[in-house]
Amino acid sequence: MIKNSLGREFPDTLFGRPLRPYRDPFSFIPEGRQAARPIRRVNPGGNKLLGSLREAIEASGLRDGMTIGTHHHLRNGDQVLNTVVAEIAAMGIRDITIAGSSVHPVHEVLIPYIRDGVITRIECGVNGAISRMVSTGELDLPIITRSHGGRVRAMMCGDIKVDVAFIGAPTCDAYGNICASRGPSACGVVGYGHSDADFADCVIAVTDNLVAYPAQPISIPQNKVDYVVAIDSLGDPAQIVSTTTRVTTDPIGLQIAKYASTVIELSGLLKNGFSFQTGAGGTSLAVAANVRDLMRRQAITGSFGAGGITGYFVEMLEEGLLEALFDVQSFDLKAVASAGRNPAHIEMSADMYANPFNAGCVVNNLDCVVLGAREIDVDFNVNVNTESDGRLSGNTGGHADTAAGAKLSIVVAPSIRARLPIVRDEVTTISTPGATIDAVVTERGVALNSRYQALAPELARRGVPVKPIHQLRDEIYAITGIPRPIEFTDRVVGLIEYRDGSITDVIRQVAG
Amino acid sequence: MIKNSLGREFPDTLFGRPLRPYRDPFSFIPEGRQAARPIRRVNPGGNKLLGSLREAIEASGLRDGMTIGTHHHLRNGDQVLNTVVAEIAAMGIRDITIAGSSVHPVHEVLIPYIRDGVITRIECGVNGAISRMVSTGELDLPIITRSHGGRVRAMMCGDIKVDVAFIGAPTCDAYGNICASRGPSACGVVGYGHSDADFADCVIAVTDNLVAYPAQPISIPQNKVDYVVAIDSLGDPAQIVSTTTRVTTDPIGLQIAKYASTVIELSGLLKNGFSFQTGAGGTSLAVAANVRDLMRRQAITGSFGAGGITGYFVEMLEEGLLEALFDVQSFDLKAVASAGRNPAHIEMSADMYANPFNAGCVVNNLDCVVLGAREIDVDFNVNVNTESDGRLSGNTGGHADTAAGAKLSIVVAPSIRARLPIVRDEVTTISTPGATIDAVVTERGVALNSRYQALAPELARRGVPVKPIHQLRDEIYAITGIPRPIEFTDRVVGLIEYRDGSITDVIRQVAG
Repeated sequence: MIKNSLGREFPDTLFGRPLRPYRDPFSFIPEGRQAARPIRRVNPGGNKLLGSLREAIEASGLRDGMTIGTHHHLRNGDQVLNTVVAEIAAMGIRDITIAGSSVHPVHEVLIPYIRDGVITRIECGVNGAISRMVSTGELDLPIITRSHGGRVRAMMCGDIKVDVAFIGAPTCDAYGNICASRGPSACGVVGYGHSDADFADCVIAVTDNLVAYPAQPISIPQNKVDYVVAIDSLGDPAQIVSTTTRVTTDPIGLQIAKYASTVIELSGLLKNGFSFQTGAGGTSLAVAANVRDLMRRQAITGSFGAGGITGYFVEMLEEGLLEALFDVQSFDLKAVASAGRNPAHIEMSADMYANPFNAGCVVNNLDCVVLGAREIDVDFNVNVNTESDGRLSGNTGGHADTAAGAKLSIVVAPSIRARLPIVRDEVTTISTPGATIDAVVTERGVALNSRYQALAPELARRGVPVKPIHQLRDEIYAITGIPRPIEFTDRVVGLIEYRDGSITDVIRQVAG
Repeated sequence: MIKNSLGREFPDTLFGRPLRPYRDPFSFIPEGRQAARPIRRVNPGGNKLLGSLREAIEASGLRDGMTIGTHHHLRNGDQVLNTVVAEIAAMGIRDITIAGSSVHPVHEVLIPYIRDGVITRIECGVNGAISRMVSTGELDLPIITRSHGGRVRAMMCGDIKVDVAFIGAPTCDAYGNICASRGPSACGVVGYGHSDADFADCVIAVTDNLVAYPAQPISIPQNKVDYVVAIDSLGDPAQIVSTTTRVTTDPIGLQIAKYASTVIELSGLLKNGFSFQTGAGGTSLAVAANVRDLMRRQAITGSFGAGGITGYFVEMLEEGLLEALFDVQSFDLKAVASAGRNPAHIEMSADMYANPFNAGCVVNNLDCVVLGAREIDVDFNVNVNTESDGRLSGNTGGHADTAAGAKLSIVVAPSIRARLPIVRDEVTTISTPGATIDAVVTERGVALNSRYQALAPELARRGVPVKPIHQLRDEIYAITGIPRPIEFTDRVVGLIEYRDGSITDVIRQVAG
């Protein structure tokens, strides 16, 4: 057993790989050269458009024991992964690792293939029944959860070698130029798919909208795409993106947003050149709405909005409150439409977004990020991976990446959910280390981590209750009681890998 | 000595490397993985903007014996390479290889540094006095000339390892996002610089227009740029691009253009979806003008124009005659302006443009290319590298790449220049193999290579004199006389590397 600096203990080798314990967010320095794709040759006249998915899989050389890559821009509408795995199974190929950017509830139809040994490992975050069943021991399937930046890093460092990537292409030409912003399954951008195009041994574009050459605007260019195959549908457009994302109307959420935006206002960062990221949750969007009002009132022109992009950020761009959007994944239809139209709405690769091991990623340039949490502990560590019953279900996403990069990382969460305390002595799983979290904002008050302690007096003057995080915990425990510890067995079923490749935590099978 | 399939003989090892003789345009199949950059880590708060070029060179670790990369989008206005070499020399660093995309007459100020041993090898085409002096033995400097696709290939295969790339950035922010289409030294796109960003060990953006983050539109993103340095000027804007490129008014050129456009008209390729490339020479532009008229009259909508982009192609895009432009290098101010404005004016990397060893480059999709020539032989081999006196002076550029890729590659040239025959028994230097040339068009008639022989009768009916290439040569020799062979010594001073890495020819020192 080894113990990392967060106090988590685990075996030194798991799932056939040695584990490096997490030490701190920034000091690990990588060595060596980036992984790289095989050199190929495609002469003029060569045909890249194959007649069926099976032909493409055959051409790719996929065989037992290999790894496939997918991206999750089609979200819970995605049928690409399901279609691909069904075909792989029909071809009799087994022992496949899925190393995508995320697996969603729509992929629960893969469960029989997991039971049958077609899929034997998942190297990405999993939302939904699959990971819950892994947590209870109902499925035997090692899961390695990585942040978005961590996935590219792992590919770049050769920790994941994707043998065959299947890139869902909302629009594509027969020579493999992929366009994400057009077509019936338009998803705006395919920022995570760029990593597959950069590092996978073989890249197959799977499209339901084959157009005359050249497809444009180009998200991923032809020189990185080996084969193209057309299928009937990439999935359900109604599920691919949210129609709209909306500010919360919940009074607790609005209270939290008010406190959070006051922290931002007083941080010294909200001035010309301000850069900002929030998720698509209702409370986060309420913070964005407040910040937008502040920027209007104070005539501030921000620099950029980043991450998963929502219509709120598009409006801020179009209103001139932001100069650019860096979009790795479009969250709603307004963002999708903007991606194909606004030159300053820039598609960014996951590498550019969040990879800690390149010449400098966009999260490093963030002034402020607003993040969610399932649990927060008194060391500011955050859990976004496990549910209140201890079961794994959730992708780390950009959480750990942006928290590490931003000058001010704010976690917003209600103090209590389903009668359970959200701020607590210990989180079930450490997804994002507390060293990278600056403020925890609940409706009961704000806890500041070390680097923003000086804001406390002015926040108090502005009516924001600032409390030591232990006091916040005590006040919450006074209502909820001390949470009963979840019982786990010793068996490790999943790893939580930090963006630098070290292990912040492991997921153990839930007891009983 | 070894002899290649074109009959050229040379030693099996030169300049410290074994030579692979050229065999044919398409059969060599590469193996192995692509070269790749070192893995780095840049944490938030890190500063990439250094105070001087010297600081940047120091930070890069450049030392004796290393290789630098540059790009030639600033053409004969470029001062980046001169400034960099002067600084390298001032720092006492020696034995440097320049592996840029092209060296121009403006770089002749480097001659003293060559004499002094600061620069000891050039791995790219050289226009101007430097290569002429190498040819006469006045300078001792091995020169390896590659096509644009060949340069990326060489970097991808590890044949060239660029230790430090200096990318002239017309606009740049302090974190290294490079924008080519804006700023006082705007050059539209930096397609060749993309290769450096993909493969160089260290990438330095050199800018004279440092702007607030983020510079946009982004040509090369921050995650690939290690350092940024601001200098007073990248060069002379008046020389960076031609103000305008113009159709020839010379009657011989116009006659050639008429013949060439008739070949295109009758080729069967000029229909909806037609794709096209020409250089910026007056005769090539006259062909483009004729093709434009044909497309208008026949209501043809083409697919794309590619390569170095001129205002003529921008007009065709804006008129709706083409759906897209793939621009690796903007040739005139109209193209520069369009690159920053037209979404369908697409910046392409040299890799996407012309690298034979990827999943399929744009030249593979070309219907027709119109190319120039210094000499053409009776096997349709073309010389673009040496002058009539045998001296090396000229980049292969995209010549060999597009000839190999296009369905119809047409060489346009006057039959006689300065009383010397242009079509002749043997070219001084084989830049582009005849196997990839389909038609030679002079004002005295058109010679068709094997794959378009069937066009002869219809061309003749349209008044285009079609002649066997030997007859064309004879007619020209009847006027000029048989050219006197140029006398060379045995000493090899330069290599002509084909896009696949094999050697089509060598440059020997001119005698006397």
